[in-house]
Amino acid sequence: MASTAGKVIKCRAAVAWEAGKPLVIEEVEVAPPQAMEVRIKILYTALCHTDVYFWEAKGQTPVFPRILGHEAGGIVESVGDEVDELAPGDHVLPVFTGECKECAHCKSETSNMCDLLRINTDRGVMIGDGQSRFSIDGKPIYHFLGTSTFSEYTVVHSGCVAKINPEAPLDKVCVLSCGFCTGFGATVNVAKPPKGSTVAVFGLGAVGLSAAEGARLSGAARIIGVDVNPNKFQLAGKFGCTEFVNPKDHSKPVQQVLAEMTNGGVDRAVECTGNVNAMIQAFESVHDGWGVAVLVGVAHKDAEFKTHPINFLTERTLKGTFFGNYRPRSDLPSVVEKYMAGELELEKFITHSVPFSEINKAFDLMLRGEGIRCIIRMDG
Amino acid sequence: MASTAGKVIKCRAAVAWEAGKPLVIEEVEVAPPQAMEVRIKILYTALCHTDVYFWEAKGQTPVFPRILGHEAGGIVESVGDEVDELAPGDHVLPVFTGECKECAHCKSETSNMCDLLRINTDRGVMIGDGQSRFSIDGKPIYHFLGTSTFSEYTVVHSGCVAKINPEAPLDKVCVLSCGFCTGFGATVNVAKPPKGSTVAVFGLGAVGLSAAEGARLSGAARIIGVDVNPNKFQLAGKFGCTEFVNPKDHSKPVQQVLAEMTNGGVDRAVECTGNVNAMIQAFESVHDGWGVAVLVGVAHKDAEFKTHPINFLTERTLKGTFFGNYRPRSDLPSVVEKYMAGELELEKFITHSVPFSEINKAFDLMLRGEGIRCIIRMDG
Repeated sequence: MASTAGKVIKCRAAVAWEAGKPLVIEEVEVAPPQAMEVRIKILYTALCHTDVYFWEAKGQTPVFPRILGHEAGGIVESVGDEVDELAPGDHVLPVFTGECKECAHCKSETSNMCDLLRINTDRGVMIGDGQSRFSIDGKPIYHFLGTSTFSEYTVVHSGCVAKINPEAPLDKVCVLSCGFCTGFGATVNVAKPPKGSTVAVFGLGAVGLSAAEGARLSGAARIIGVDVNPNKFQLAGKFGCTEFVNPKDHSKPVQQVLAEMTNGGVDRAVECTGNVNAMIQAFESVHDGWGVAVLVGVAHKDAEFKTHPINFLTERTLKGTFFGNYRPRSDLPSVVEKYMAGELELEKFITHSVPFSEINKAFDLMLRGEGIRCIIRMDG
Repeated sequence: MASTAGKVIKCRAAVAWEAGKPLVIEEVEVAPPQAMEVRIKILYTALCHTDVYFWEAKGQTPVFPRILGHEAGGIVESVGDEVDELAPGDHVLPVFTGECKECAHCKSETSNMCDLLRINTDRGVMIGDGQSRFSIDGKPIYHFLGTSTFSEYTVVHSGCVAKINPEAPLDKVCVLSCGFCTGFGATVNVAKPPKGSTVAVFGLGAVGLSAAEGARLSGAARIIGVDVNPNKFQLAGKFGCTEFVNPKDHSKPVQQVLAEMTNGGVDRAVECTGNVNAMIQAFESVHDGWGVAVLVGVAHKDAEFKTHPINFLTERTLKGTFFGNYRPRSDLPSVVEKYMAGELELEKFITHSVPFSEINKAFDLMLRGEGIRCIIRMDG
């Protein structure tokens, strides 16, 4: 055990004091991990749209002050009672959703939606005792997604921690703990495009590009990127997209444009925008008889998916996925191994890097739509 | 070849002269089969809702005079040019949809929606030359679904004919050519309930009972029949249904009733009513994480399927099926073998039998909602 085990650690964290205001680097106190928890020294974290979404807090219950961040890699500093699969020194990826290995979901063959540790965006405390492990001058600072990786040290439920190959470079594989796996898994675990097939990807952000990467690795012959922003097309070419459709360039519905390009429809469609109209378009773009559409993006709470039932009866399938159907503890280590084996090109996703002291620059980049992933170096 | 080969056959047929009026047994002339066609002596035919639907002609383009009928068994009398997989004397089931074995659908791994021979409810002629093979006094009588089995002899495209075991009793296996396979296949080929799972079947007509039978044979532990007509419940018990829900008995939505009965939702739902609200209910009744809903019933042309996208994102799957995903020529012979091996209890579905001369009694029974299948004996 490190000499800090069992003690409060004082360290730097980027605190979101209120919605939409720049984060402030503060000295926070991080309490020791309780039963089933681990304390992790974060080395690298990345910024994801979901952080920005909850920082802006336009659609949800505002929870402030809060430490955001959920895409990260680090090393276990100490563990609480009853933690038997993790030990200090382990290299880990904290994940925004968990795997208790005991509930009906964890025991099912397909679900990764753990009853105990499923994502909860409103909760700002640990599930064990309902308390926060972060404080400043004795006042609690709330957690985010159970991860709060915008802190040099954080406390996470052990069911939300993937233990990975210690040889893996954490400044690269940190991106696996959210966006990449969400899109990549949607394709390889759920859409499962056959070799030689045609795949449409709706939305060419980080998740959509990861979905395209999954199609490329699955051996798809044609990968059609669909986005209303043509600036995305050049970048998407690096991720396997062979063709592009900007719905704004056509007077016909994009379903029809794709059907004409593909003799009746694409074999697979993966929707990564969260816009309900794009969801409907993605579904209606797949070929009858065998087409499968997969929804990834999270829609507005009042959104309604609408289509004529004949689109199902003509043997189309519609599925949704959460975190690419990956189970954090069981599956993430093998995705890291894929990277180590040279199969995944994570470097393509990492377009920027900033020291922790300049974390607000990462927010600026994302708000301007520049790049894909910005890595935040915690030692800087 | 029979002595009738190559000649016009005069025989009895039940002609629907106009919408909703009793069929009239007439002497018709049945022309010889042309290239790719076979002429079949029908021995047994059954009445299906689809016959009644097109006889009533309330929703579609009326096509009269017409010979209805599509669930049947018979023996090949003669074959046209280029027919190489069928010969006079073969025992066959004519099917309302076909399998050319050459189009993209037939060559795909999953689709049975043949480009050439897919069901066409408006067409009343043969696809080869656009002519009818039936006439009275030289005036054409239209075909129905390419089968027109309410005739002692009929002409069918060879791609729509399943050659079956000649030992199989045609008065039983005739029901396999539509309703039974549609429901049974929806469960065993598409929903695929795991052993010990819970399955809800919406709509307990012939198709729904066949879907329940599929769930029973798949080893489902609980089969919940959902219908607004409680008279169906007693009968459904013979088809494996273990529990019943009448949505009219509850003030809560049936989705919620089923969720409470099953700790969160059923593992599989099969919708066999064609009512779009039942489709939505069936989908929203399946468990998150792994639930699969399958749509079988054909909805009204203006119907709209609506649901919140979160119901997909929480890892539910929605699929539709056509003819239970069975390929007529490739798959039906093996379903007949299942019956021959004693696995399928088709007798349960056959509740009535009438001679051909009394075919209108079969219509009366169906209009009154009595029984499941009425077999029409062509020799009577």
